[in-house]
Amino acid sequence: MPPEGELRYPPPPPTESTTTIDEEAGWVWAQIKAEARRDAEAEPALASYLYSTILSHSSLERSLAFHLGNKLCSSTLLSTLLYDLFLNTFTSDPGLRVAAVADLRAARARDPACVSFSHCLLNYKGFLACQAHRVAHKLWNQSRRPLALALHSRISDVFAVDIHPAAKIGKGILFDHATGVVIGETAVIGNNVSILHHVTLGGTGKASGDRHPKIGDGVLIGAGATILGNVKIGEGAKIGAGSVVLIDVPPRTTTVGNPARLYYLIGFAPYLSLGWYCSYFTNNAPYSNPNAYGYYDLKKSLISFKQMKQALKSKCIEQMVEIMEGMWESNEA
Amino acid sequence: MPPEGELRYPPPPPTESTTTIDEEAGWVWAQIKAEARRDAEAEPALASYLYSTILSHSSLERSLAFHLGNKLCSSTLLSTLLYDLFLNTFTSDPGLRVAAVADLRAARARDPACVSFSHCLLNYKGFLACQAHRVAHKLWNQSRRPLALALHSRISDVFAVDIHPAAKIGKGILFDHATGVVIGETAVIGNNVSILHHVTLGGTGKASGDRHPKIGDGVLIGAGATILGNVKIGEGAKIGAGSVVLIDVPPRTTTVGNPARLYYLIGFAPYLSLGWYCSYFTNNAPYSNPNAYGYYDLKKSLISFKQMKQALKSKCIEQMVEIMEGMWESNEA
Amino acid sequence: MPPEGELRYPPPPPTESTTTIDEEAGWVWAQIKAEARRDAEAEPALASYLYSTILSHSSLERSLAFHLGNKLCSSTLLSTLLYDLFLNTFTSDPGLRVAAVADLRAARARDPACVSFSHCLLNYKGFLACQAHRVAHKLWNQSRRPLALALHSRISDVFAVDIHPAAKIGKGILFDHATGVVIGETAVIGNNVSILHHVTLGGTGKASGDRHPKIGDGVLIGAGATILGNVKIGEGAKIGAGSVVLIDVPPRTTTVGNPARLYYLIGFAPYLSLGWYCSYFTNNAPYSNPNAYGYYDLKKSLISFKQMKQALKSKCIEQMVEIMEGMWESNEA
Repeated sequence: MPPEGELRYPPPPPTESTTTIDEEAGWVWAQIKAEARRDAEAEPALASYLYSTILSHSSLERSLAFHLGNKLCSSTLLSTLLYDLFLNTFTSDPGLRVAAVADLRAARARDPACVSFSHCLLNYKGFLACQAHRVAHKLWNQSRRPLALALHSRISDVFAVDIHPAAKIGKGILFDHATGVVIGETAVIGNNVSILHHVTLGGTGKASGDRHPKIGDGVLIGAGATILGNVKIGEGAKIGAGSVVLIDVPPRTTTVGNPARLYYLIGFAPYLSLGWYCSYFTNNAPYSNPNAYGYYDLKKSLISFKQMKQALKSKCIEQMVEIMEGMWESNEA
Repeated sequence: MPPEGELRYPPPPPTESTTTIDEEAGWVWAQIKAEARRDAEAEPALASYLYSTILSHSSLERSLAFHLGNKLCSSTLLSTLLYDLFLNTFTSDPGLRVAAVADLRAARARDPACVSFSHCLLNYKGFLACQAHRVAHKLWNQSRRPLALALHSRISDVFAVDIHPAAKIGKGILFDHATGVVIGETAVIGNNVSILHHVTLGGTGKASGDRHPKIGDGVLIGAGATILGNVKIGEGAKIGAGSVVLIDVPPRTTTVGNPARLYYLIGFAPYLSLGWYCSYFTNNAPYSNPNAYGYYDLKKSLISFKQMKQALKSKCIEQMVEIMEGMWESNEA
Repeated sequence: MPPEGELRYPPPPPTESTTTIDEEAGWVWAQIKAEARRDAEAEPALASYLYSTILSHSSLERSLAFHLGNKLCSSTLLSTLLYDLFLNTFTSDPGLRVAAVADLRAARARDPACVSFSHCLLNYKGFLACQAHRVAHKLWNQSRRPLALALHSRISDVFAVDIHPAAKIGKGILFDHATGVVIGETAVIGNNVSILHHVTLGGTGKASGDRHPKIGDGVLIGAGATILGNVKIGEGAKIGAGSVVLIDVPPRTTTVGNPARLYYLIGFAPYLSLGWYCSYFTNNAPYSNPNAYGYYDLKKSLISFKQMKQALKSKCIEQMVEIMEGMWESNEA
């Protein structure tokens, strides 16, 4: 028996390969079947479940259509109707399979808790909600809007993931945990984006029309972050957990706090205070005793002060944050 | 075929009308049936669903009772039992129909993503949870509390909307997206209130008895806002997304931040800093070079400083916020 | 008929008793049966439901296994399979019954809205999710991981509560409202912890391995709080609603704000400003007119200033907050 924590699952394949898209999808599907066979043998209680959802199907699309149909059906929207709808849509647009495979790879690569492709396919409500959304999005664009909205509603009921059918979502997406995600009608999400649970891409309530965020490639949005309005989150940006973002975020920057611009405010306040502090110290001999009026090491403070001024000039938030943290930490030490 | 984005739905009727309440409800129900007929013709896959949930019913109450019964039933709480319960309650209190019609109108008027009355009736879990809550509230007041609590539990399971059956809710309510809404036992919500997803009207954990917020008419509560304790949110107030509110909010004011009183603190900090800044500049010639110690345009700062002092005196948060934003923006420019 | 608000439920028994664990569990189960009999008589519409979920069962474990099986089953994971799985696991480990009883008592003692043990057993999705998690955790430790993960997925779908099967959870736990709770793989939760809805115990995304919070005994975590990384929340600490916590929190302290360290920052800013304010006043006669440059009563400010310095030195956040609030309040008065 392996030590606790060892998972006995094969490692993910190298992400860069010379295989074609079809070969890639075939490889992933073969992996999923192999995982399901192994799990069915090891756990007879799951054998019937794994047979009906994976092992009895001839392709990823069929497995996914069956699984989604079962998850999203109700007494008035039958699973057979949904199965046909999903399978027809997957068959008509090979891009949906490519996107599903990229999403499976994203979960495997970016979520340390994802132990296998079949784990994601069977259990990740973020993955399943995203695939169902892609079908709803196709229906929306085909002007089959009542059906798209019915599907949207079922996804929101079953997975607690509320993505408007008109929202555009790229591929290689990880919706981690996914509960409570809300994405509005005119939102656009690029490729290779990671979105945690409780994230909102919403409107400000002030406008109709194009009113939701545009998320660049490779963005990471932390748990509970709320991004409102037609703002642009630049590629590779990181939005901290619990942030409230109402303004554009430049590429490759990190934003935190509520409101997210707070970092500017907070960044400014100690800067000004510190600025005065330093200038005062250097010009007012009677007050230069740090024990009397403050805790800062004067030399350190002056260095931090200059660094902060530079960071403010270049509007580099990450650097400002780093300096501030260094200031408080050195102060606390 | 219309251009993408055009919805081919009739516009909402004028909100002010001379019709009676019965005529109004009749008009809305006729609209819903017309929408359902049109959608059933355009989308045969939905025909059976639309027939069983809308077209086969003789009134809004019957349609709603059937739809809610189907959504909230389980293997131990049968849909027939729930259908009878909902229909009997709707029939016994015409006020519930009036409230449902006002809620349908609220969604249509205030949510740009709501394309039709039937869209809201069939798909909005916030609308459905609210109607089911009204029934649970009637049961609670009739001392049928175990049944009220069983219904409460099903609403929380199925819609992820947790409204205590004792909570009092007005009419013309929009629960937009609705996932994760939690409303405590002694909360009171006025008329024409809009509440986004993940909103909590909770207790502080310190008290029993009357311990939850009181929300005035026309309030808007943004996504993820948390309002705690027996506090009063004045009519027409706006609570920003992600706010944590622990104190009364005056009518027609806007509150943001975590904690919401933060705006006072933050408002103060730059004010004090700025105050010193200005006074220093004007009195210390050697430091009056803005390139040396800061970025503020001195004249602008002095004006802002005076405005802020005034805003602080009159405790006008909105004005303070506006001035502050102007300060940071002019500084960044 | 009793006045509205009176619940006609017996009060909870004294929490300290000389009974054995078995007697305690027997007493709670007898209470639950008595409550169910009373409710079935008063509300015939619930009689069949109460009979099948409680009255027909010979023990708490059997009732719980039946109820959880019914809640968590799907068309591919049958309720009979889940019933057997739950009952076998409960029977094999008496600790699970002890923990369930402690959780029932926790809800009864700490949630003013919990009117009876059967109310919690039947309706609290946080209670049910926690009991199902304990079973998933046993399976995980027995290397039955695919089954543990399938159960995990069903709990997340049905209750919108996402607890990784590897997470370790003590007893006497109250998950209040519970919607949207996310608890990561390497999280550890002590005994007698209260966790509100939308709480995240997550990773920072920077690490694999041991990467989730460790929550001490008796901690209270408010609605929407996000605790990230392998940080330690000391016993008896209180994490305010909406907090974002990225650092260790000492025992018996209160943490609020986003980010939670904000209190340090905010604490510092007025301190520094105030420090300057005071020193300036006492040393610059021309500026000592409070009407000209500020609102502070000088004497009060000096006292606050000294207190704050002391509070900062002892790193007592609660005291800092109290002083700050006193400052702003006296200023506003």
